[in-house]
Amino acid sequence: MIPVLSHPGLAVGRDGARAVTRSLPEEVPVALSFDGETLAVMMASPADLTDFAHGFALSEGVIETLDQVESFEVVTHPNGIEARFTLSDDRSEALAARRRRMTGPVGCGLCGIDSLDQAVRDLPSVADTTMRIARAEIAAATDALTHHQPIHDQTRAVHAAGFLRPGEGIVMAREDVGRHNALDKLIGALAQAGIEAASGAIVLTSRISVEMVQKAAMAGCPVLIAASAPTAHALRLAEGAGMTVAAFARGGRFDLYSHPQRIETGASDVA
Amino acid sequence: MIPVLSHPGLAVGRDGARAVTRSLPEEVPVALSFDGETLAVMMASPADLTDFAHGFALSEGVIETLDQVESFEVVTHPNGIEARFTLSDDRSEALAARRRRMTGPVGCGLCGIDSLDQAVRDLPSVADTTMRIARAEIAAATDALTHHQPIHDQTRAVHAAGFLRPGEGIVMAREDVGRHNALDKLIGALAQAGIEAASGAIVLTSRISVEMVQKAAMAGCPVLIAASAPTAHALRLAEGAGMTVAAFARGGRFDLYSHPQRIETGASDVA
Repeated sequence: MIPVLSHPGLAVGRDGARAVTRSLPEEVPVALSFDGETLAVMMASPADLTDFAHGFALSEGVIETLDQVESFEVVTHPNGIEARFTLSDDRSEALAARRRRMTGPVGCGLCGIDSLDQAVRDLPSVADTTMRIARAEIAAATDALTHHQPIHDQTRAVHAAGFLRPGEGIVMAREDVGRHNALDKLIGALAQAGIEAASGAIVLTSRISVEMVQKAAMAGCPVLIAASAPTAHALRLAEGAGMTVAAFARGGRFDLYSHPQRIETGASDVA
Repeated sequence: MIPVLSHPGLAVGRDGARAVTRSLPEEVPVALSFDGETLAVMMASPADLTDFAHGFALSEGVIETLDQVESFEVVTHPNGIEARFTLSDDRSEALAARRRRMTGPVGCGLCGIDSLDQAVRDLPSVADTTMRIARAEIAAATDALTHHQPIHDQTRAVHAAGFLRPGEGIVMAREDVGRHNALDKLIGALAQAGIEAASGAIVLTSRISVEMVQKAAMAGCPVLIAASAPTAHALRLAEGAGMTVAAFARGGRFDLYSHPQRIETGASDVA
């Protein structure tokens, strides 16, 4: 499947209507299955699905490293795409145990309070590396990311997640109609390329919600930079996980909210 | 809980850094439980949660009408909020049957292909009402919606869904950090106010994805207007469900993609 489709439409304005053709993003259900059972079905852009599946598995803690995947294939069904994993014996058992903990006669099966405890899982702290990023690199990060968004160039309607290495710029980026998926794709791509997420910053075109901090922390990335706002809850999690958050990063400026030690801020200029 | 929090930050620009206070959106886990078991946990803005829960229940087909709710309460737990429903006997049985169909020893429990079939559920067709909307109202809809976004006024970081009635403008609107939640809140609020979704158009600040069309169709709303792009898959669903989709609606213009009969387009101007 291709991630962008041409679609006919009628452009309507004050002076009438005319036929147009727009490039629109495609969206497809992707089932993520492990050892024969589906863990989730996500609507996603049909591009880089191997990256997506591996990133999802890492973000959700289903696997800790890629060598825990015994086999993997992407299977196209009439109704969507299945990313099908077979896990190594130990991870297979861990997943089965996790599934038993979540079991009832049903879908989710937990009562409200147990479900909330599951949703607000403890996050690993990011390592206190010596990695530092210059203020100017942060300020230019989301502008730099725009040069790595081919689907967005065509559609103006998808999100991107990129990886910035100090002194090297954006070294990798992935796109999706969903911002969570774009980040999972990036995390999967970094892992498969053997690039340590601890060696740089994740750069997002989107806002920073709780789930974005969870994914970055699971990947071990110490710095999150976003074009738009963080939520208050996301900042509390990032603070606790030791993660630096820079938001509203665009047009040569940004807001810094947590763990500023990794960024040369010119804070000495503060009155 | 309140939906907007003041948060300290450091605004960093070319000429230094200064301490600032930003208004950021809050985000909280909300468990939606029915007859003692959770169906989903969603991260949401802690506002209008009764609307949200009822809209979710309607969108997901757990209930068809509000009188199928036996009791409802919003319970605050240390880790989040629970929206707790008890259903009428018939809906209770229908939900239990649905849960049995989805059962395995687990979370979701279905194989990949069954999960994909569940994800791409059949949508009801929207009734072919005689409701018509003028071109100028569609073109002005998202601008009109900006006057009903108090959380966005403070944070610039949340989505909104509004309801437009021909000749009356935006008669109701709801906001959330998540665009799906904003729409569920609107659907729940309309139902509780006794306003038929068939009598007007849903207006979105966001893009139109598959799930937005699914929710609008379940609510029986025949027209969807959005500030941003639709996905190609969302348009195929809307076409099949008989729904009119107007996208990129801003600055006095819009693109019309499906079922134009409900909109006076000035199509006679087409060359």
